[in-house]
Amino acid sequence: MRTIFGFMTAVSIAFLGYMTASSHSELYHQRASLFKVLSVTSNDIVFVGNSITHGCEWHELFDNPAVKNRGINGDVIAGMRERIDPVVEGHPRKIFLMGGVNDISHNLLADSIGRAMGELIDYIQLKSPGTRLYVQACLPINNSFGRYKLLKGKEDVVRAYNRILKSMAVEKGYTFIDTYSLFADADGNLDRSFTNDGLHLMGNAYLRWRDFLLPYINE
Amino acid sequence: MRTIFGFMTAVSIAFLGYMTASSHSELYHQRASLFKVLSVTSNDIVFVGNSITHGCEWHELFDNPAVKNRGINGDVIAGMRERIDPVVEGHPRKIFLMGGVNDISHNLLADSIGRAMGELIDYIQLKSPGTRLYVQACLPINNSFGRYKLLKGKEDVVRAYNRILKSMAVEKGYTFIDTYSLFADADGNLDRSFTNDGLHLMGNAYLRWRDFLLPYINE
Repeated sequence: MRTIFGFMTAVSIAFLGYMTASSHSELYHQRASLFKVLSVTSNDIVFVGNSITHGCEWHELFDNPAVKNRGINGDVIAGMRERIDPVVEGHPRKIFLMGGVNDISHNLLADSIGRAMGELIDYIQLKSPGTRLYVQACLPINNSFGRYKLLKGKEDVVRAYNRILKSMAVEKGYTFIDTYSLFADADGNLDRSFTNDGLHLMGNAYLRWRDFLLPYINE
Repeated sequence: MRTIFGFMTAVSIAFLGYMTASSHSELYHQRASLFKVLSVTSNDIVFVGNSITHGCEWHELFDNPAVKNRGINGDVIAGMRERIDPVVEGHPRKIFLMGGVNDISHNLLADSIGRAMGELIDYIQLKSPGTRLYVQACLPINNSFGRYKLLKGKEDVVRAYNRILKSMAVEKGYTFIDTYSLFADADGNLDRSFTNDGLHLMGNAYLRWRDFLLPYINE
């Protein structure tokens, strides 16, 4: 009996392991576990996103300790949905949300990504209706760097996804922020003066972003 | 003459490109350029390091807006030296410095890494003698995860490097912090309860680190 019980326990643990398995990166789980033990309060302004969010020190940029970074390199919208509870449970004052470019690199199309983001937005608004929600456009990419092969030729997907984000704003009641136009050159590529790899941003770009967001931070 | 001048200009630009070329990652330059445009002041407590530093939200962990993150994934001690000026020029109140594990993964030995760190420490103390400097031990690694092949079999290099850091503390006048022992199991590996890849930390580990550092933050 003891042997059978031991066997059943082993099976249960293996099954539990299967149930809780995830396709996310090790970094995702490291950051997500950190975000579970850090607090979010009703005074906070939370930046949720991927590597472009992760790469900045937002509280320094805005000189505001209530600004918190919830970015994870490589994260997709499904990943943000899975880790959003510790954010919405704190009922922050504002959330600035940005995502989609990694979903695009995974070959999803604009309608699928827009739907996933719409569901994440619905969930945030359901769980924390008092939070003012800002959804930022996916930034332009610049494939002339040749650095991110999975984004090659997908400029139109970025633009189509952003049109969806913009079109849902009134119905869903969030503020759409056109961070695409902020960083695009005349051809619709990420302006070379703001990047060294065609996807991520240099310090000068974050300063430009700060100036652009300040009215939303302060309103 | 105009053609020759054009040719010479092209050669000069190519040479300049060579001179300013760097072996650091794109992320390094993104973060380093951000750190140049963010300020450091004499009230600040600055965490300088690699991915293990980058991965935390230190100002939230310590509930202190003067705590600033100057971590970059994958950074080596030479990289920290090349980007330390914007930190020391702000003459911060304290610097918490951690590095070495990426140098170890690049096959450098403890004496070389210890010398590089010693030179970085000397430079910090020369440029900002009023800054209180804390040098944190390289964390233990756990190769049973099999995740970082370049660290395989290098547990003794970590320990030898840490012995050098500890031995230089009195002579150089910094505080050595034994973060190695804080996270090591009985066999000298990174305790499995703190990591999911044998190198980086989960949220619970950062809480433990916070409690351990609080006396140094507050002194």
